[in-house]
Amino acid sequence: MQAGIIGLGLMGGSLGLALKETKMFKSVVGYDASLLHGRQALTLGLVDELVSLKDLQECDIVYVAVPLESTLEVLDNFEDVERPNFTIVDLGSVKDKIASSLSPKLQKYYIGAHPMCGTENSGPSASVKDLYKHKIVILSNLDRASTFQEAFAKEVFLAIGMQIVSMDSISHDKHVAFISHLPHVLSFALANAVLSQERPEDILMLAGGGFVSMSRLSKSSPITWSDIFKQNKEFLTNSINVYEKELQKLKGFLEEDDYEGLKAWIANANRISEFL
Amino acid sequence: MQAGIIGLGLMGGSLGLALKETKMFKSVVGYDASLLHGRQALTLGLVDELVSLKDLQECDIVYVAVPLESTLEVLDNFEDVERPNFTIVDLGSVKDKIASSLSPKLQKYYIGAHPMCGTENSGPSASVKDLYKHKIVILSNLDRASTFQEAFAKEVFLAIGMQIVSMDSISHDKHVAFISHLPHVLSFALANAVLSQERPEDILMLAGGGFVSMSRLSKSSPITWSDIFKQNKEFLTNSINVYEKELQKLKGFLEEDDYEGLKAWIANANRISEFL
Repeated sequence: MQAGIIGLGLMGGSLGLALKETKMFKSVVGYDASLLHGRQALTLGLVDELVSLKDLQECDIVYVAVPLESTLEVLDNFEDVERPNFTIVDLGSVKDKIASSLSPKLQKYYIGAHPMCGTENSGPSASVKDLYKHKIVILSNLDRASTFQEAFAKEVFLAIGMQIVSMDSISHDKHVAFISHLPHVLSFALANAVLSQERPEDILMLAGGGFVSMSRLSKSSPITWSDIFKQNKEFLTNSINVYEKELQKLKGFLEEDDYEGLKAWIANANRISEFL
Repeated sequence: MQAGIIGLGLMGGSLGLALKETKMFKSVVGYDASLLHGRQALTLGLVDELVSLKDLQECDIVYVAVPLESTLEVLDNFEDVERPNFTIVDLGSVKDKIASSLSPKLQKYYIGAHPMCGTENSGPSASVKDLYKHKIVILSNLDRASTFQEAFAKEVFLAIGMQIVSMDSISHDKHVAFISHLPHVLSFALANAVLSQERPEDILMLAGGGFVSMSRLSKSSPITWSDIFKQNKEFLTNSINVYEKELQKLKGFLEEDDYEGLKAWIANANRISEFL
């Protein structure tokens, strides 16, 4: 069997390393719209071979790991594949818009997957072999896919050490707005807030572990995240509104010198330890 | 020489381990208002001996590592110490209010220090030996302290592996509002936002590395952080206002579908990599 990967950055490149390790495939081939990234990926051994988009139609399973706004265009290339056992998996971070735009035929071949892993780094050189290991992957809209595609996609995700959670694409987009997209918003806003000050270097030289944790995500790719925020605009805006209410509560405690209220608000946040 | 530590939680307890390792002191003694914490600290070997507040007056150097709102009361106990070589160091996270409340006499003995390190855990059992190593400590208002006290305090901080930065207490409070207090606000607010949802467990089960990073600080102590927010209320409120403007910018890009503006905003946040 042959696996193909479109987009050889952090997610696609790391997947290449993971798929090769499973030994489930005779070869893992790749394609990247950037010639430079393709060559880097090959040099780094992320894939066995670079092929054309057209050649990828011959693969048993193809993974799409490109910025969200390019995903539909990439999926279009597979409209005329006729093999009933062909599987195509999209790894994007927002699911509903793409899933509901697919042709009925392609929907049978298509598995929407969102691996809950990543780092703030991007490009082929950011790839790490164990990025997916012991992490959660959310599969969505499995009811539209054929049984074979569902089983095959799951088998591979299990083989690279992932834990599978299934839900419909709307629930997915709503939940990840809070658990992934909102945290990125906060980190970008924190970095911009500090950088907007007159001499940010005087502030940043004092950074301890707390600021390092909170600003890590602010190093993430503008293209990747602009596309994600665009496609999940409604749910993301809702999560930001919920979040802003919490900030208002805190400001209210300070304005009214209500430090018992403030302590209770912090103690409530501490409940996150029950889950994480 | 003998060193004393008041407050044997994360900061005081970790300092005990670090001071013992320097071998600069014949003994490192401690006091905690909580009998349980005192005994835990002794069992864990964080200090050599538990003593009374009064006994601490005999130490060469005393470190105060209690919640901010208790600091002045603790410092009051040292008003009648008459030894010119007595040094007292407060490790609190906000400096101006305390420094400017001290008597002229105590100000000569007093060094305001803020070690830029910590973890989300608290209590004696949270202590770790290398908490201070290779971290920054901000010393403030050194002009009010006597030469001996400044030199001695610096020598010990260097001995436990810290890097010293000096500034006046107002600049300190202004800078740490951005680099330490604001990040804690964001993390508490993020945790509370998710926990306010109908079934937070359904969201939190999907947490990846990003959410884990961004919610870590939300596990921090309500007493410690309520006191910090209270004492740094003005600068903290200012930093929250600056931060909220960045959130408004982001919401504006989404509302106006200005994705070039959004990309530029994210790319600006990426500049944090030039510093960290």
